[in-house]
Amino acid sequence: MNPLTSPLLTDLYQLTMLQAYFARGMTDTAVFELFVRKLPPGRKFLVAAGLEQALDFISQLRFGEEELDWIARSGLFRPDFIEHLAGLRFTGDVHAMPEGTVFFPDEPLLRVSAPMPQAQLLETRVLNLVHFETVVASKAARSVLAAKGKRLIDFGLRRAHGAEAGLLAARAAYLAGFSGTSTVLAAPRFGIPVFGTMAHSFVQAHEDEAAAFEHFAEVFPESAVLLIDTYDTAAGARKAVELARSGVQVKGVRLDSGDLGALSRRVRKILDAGGLKDAIIFASGNLDEYRVAKLVAEGAPIDSFGIGTSLVTSADCPFLDAVYKLEEYAGQPRRKRSTGKATWPGRKQVYRRYHADGTFAGDVVTLESDPRPGEPLLARVIERGKRLASPALDSARAHALAQLERLPAPLRSLEAALAPYPVEIAPALRAAAEAVDRTTGCASFSSAAT
Amino acid sequence: MNPLTSPLLTDLYQLTMLQAYFARGMTDTAVFELFVRKLPPGRKFLVAAGLEQALDFISQLRFGEEELDWIARSGLFRPDFIEHLAGLRFTGDVHAMPEGTVFFPDEPLLRVSAPMPQAQLLETRVLNLVHFETVVASKAARSVLAAKGKRLIDFGLRRAHGAEAGLLAARAAYLAGFSGTSTVLAAPRFGIPVFGTMAHSFVQAHEDEAAAFEHFAEVFPESAVLLIDTYDTAAGARKAVELARSGVQVKGVRLDSGDLGALSRRVRKILDAGGLKDAIIFASGNLDEYRVAKLVAEGAPIDSFGIGTSLVTSADCPFLDAVYKLEEYAGQPRRKRSTGKATWPGRKQVYRRYHADGTFAGDVVTLESDPRPGEPLLARVIERGKRLASPALDSARAHALAQLERLPAPLRSLEAALAPYPVEIAPALRAAAEAVDRTTGCASFSSAAT
Repeated sequence: MNPLTSPLLTDLYQLTMLQAYFARGMTDTAVFELFVRKLPPGRKFLVAAGLEQALDFISQLRFGEEELDWIARSGLFRPDFIEHLAGLRFTGDVHAMPEGTVFFPDEPLLRVSAPMPQAQLLETRVLNLVHFETVVASKAARSVLAAKGKRLIDFGLRRAHGAEAGLLAARAAYLAGFSGTSTVLAAPRFGIPVFGTMAHSFVQAHEDEAAAFEHFAEVFPESAVLLIDTYDTAAGARKAVELARSGVQVKGVRLDSGDLGALSRRVRKILDAGGLKDAIIFASGNLDEYRVAKLVAEGAPIDSFGIGTSLVTSADCPFLDAVYKLEEYAGQPRRKRSTGKATWPGRKQVYRRYHADGTFAGDVVTLESDPRPGEPLLARVIERGKRLASPALDSARAHALAQLERLPAPLRSLEAALAPYPVEIAPALRAAAEAVDRTTGCASFSSAAT
Repeated sequence: MNPLTSPLLTDLYQLTMLQAYFARGMTDTAVFELFVRKLPPGRKFLVAAGLEQALDFISQLRFGEEELDWIARSGLFRPDFIEHLAGLRFTGDVHAMPEGTVFFPDEPLLRVSAPMPQAQLLETRVLNLVHFETVVASKAARSVLAAKGKRLIDFGLRRAHGAEAGLLAARAAYLAGFSGTSTVLAAPRFGIPVFGTMAHSFVQAHEDEAAAFEHFAEVFPESAVLLIDTYDTAAGARKAVELARSGVQVKGVRLDSGDLGALSRRVRKILDAGGLKDAIIFASGNLDEYRVAKLVAEGAPIDSFGIGTSLVTSADCPFLDAVYKLEEYAGQPRRKRSTGKATWPGRKQVYRRYHADGTFAGDVVTLESDPRPGEPLLARVIERGKRLASPALDSARAHALAQLERLPAPLRSLEAALAPYPVEIAPALRAAAEAVDRTTGCASFSSAAT
């Protein structure tokens, strides 16, 4: 059973609920929406990502022999239900915001309309995929804004949370505007450019640093970026110059520790004085968007930044309050009213208005049946189980970069926002919520107060 | 190419360094050690985990046809090197601390001794696996201590960072003393007990809550745990009582929102008064070790806690400063001296001494060649490429629980530690570091000062 595709990579309650739905014949159309309840502290916007992987999962959903065997052996499920699972496929519709779209709390970024068991079963893995890539794309976009055009590379695989996290973090960062990744598999898998220099161990394995540089540059005559901070950074830079003087091409150097601003200035002078004006300076080592912003603001002569752990774990905020909630069943809007977790009912759409210069002016969340001025952000991506064409990753990346260009100025800085971006809950949606509260659900709410 | 097993799930520089090593014939034995440089804020100890997955990866390491094809097509590598990669297998030794062992900064938890290219190539994925499971096991152990015997279940899959993170988080939490997980695939994959109740959507899909409870309990007559907070928690508890009075067995109820302490007391009274003294109360909803400790301390009548996002993302600290560093090459100890990132050279062992009552008294890190009093924590787990037998997951879990029992009292509480646990760097190791600094590396260090 491949965890990347198995429908058993889910919460047990999805299967137990499915058996109960099956037993009762509750297969009417359910509408679930995926949204984020609130922004993490210090964040001002989010970037939708992970849709491609979610759609792959949804459109390929099926229980294989091994899964069905385990379900049977578990003793929790009835034979007629297991037979039903064997034939289960997704036959519904999915609407979603295109990957790379900037969005805000309370705005659905994905909506599933399908027979209840199918729609319910998707919850865990679809959240798992969309949540994670959205976490990383939203984090990466902050560095992209902070870098003001300097090149950013994902270096995070070793401290990503497992294999899929490393691979999808490379994708989400690229989608949000990074130039590439160090993760090799991202190249064959997603066509993402891969970058690499050398590790300290390579320098240490040689008797001296100059020999390490020479040996590396011999093998990669056009692309050698030399790691110069193993012992002493300025001395390392001088060795790079000496190597170039001996006729070997040096593409650039990497700094991975110390005061990157001061060291980059010192190294730039050494390289320039040594005739290596075209050699690039690559910086890494515990970087995040704040450090990148500071280095860029102080004019540090760094051409490319490698960002690792803080990016792929979204270290300041490794999760979003992302949920997948039932909004309608059998044609009736539904609403949850648990303390602090109330939801807006019904099938929803988000409309975005723009200023004359193209920047975002404000969003409104309303019922799909209540068209509003502005651009609707959700579009159909799966129709009756059939996946519609979706943009290539490079198109999604261009869309994300265009979205960042259109962010209102206060949302582009890393400083705390004075006021949140305006997201209006439309009167039609408020009225729908009140109508739900007046029906059955409300009766149980009233009785609860007694 | 399966990201879970592919050697291309690595940093590009591993492959470029390998080509340079190959070109120079640098295949002498390299010794790398995996350790954590410092504890995250507020943490007092770490729990080693992920070794099993790392050993699977190491012992099965090979480049398949698809990988070799991509490497050839990338244009970065030479044909003779690609041929060499096709035959590459791990033929070295690995020493490690058993999974579940409590460890501290500067203590190697894994050591690889192998021809340089093999040992280097392991870095990214071995760190990726051991780092993540250690992050989660270390986080989970805090909840295990806080829960004082109450049952803990991992609920985090939906917000784990991808599929492998969800699956391995379930494993790491179980290893550290959790009782199980909601992640179904963890059962067939690791034999971990799985638990599940129902979601709010199940209640909402029914016309009223009582009908939802009845339908669920009909299908799972012995194991129904009813989610009672969708509309009003006390009213939900009364409906559970009514259902039991109608002759249906109710195993327990789940609370997922609001003031869990106050609600659990109110619900317990309702259940007890209704004759459901044996019904369990299960609590979930934004829990972490601090909230569990507070609920346990105030005597909340909660039998089991479901912990999700905070556990699987280790939300307060989603990464450790874990590294894999070259300590010896071709028989010579090696040392990195980059600012703030200096390492101790040579093959090391950790010895732990105990007080008479069995609690940890202090550790010493020294050279393998310098035996010290106490228990050596690292043992051989791969010998000349052949994997040795390793404990079953339940044995590792028993080891972890025994380790937590032996923690000194100040390390068992969640409050900040007054003094760190004593980890001594042995005189022999300090002397070895000074000796390295007097050799070649030191010459480059001295020249750097000029």
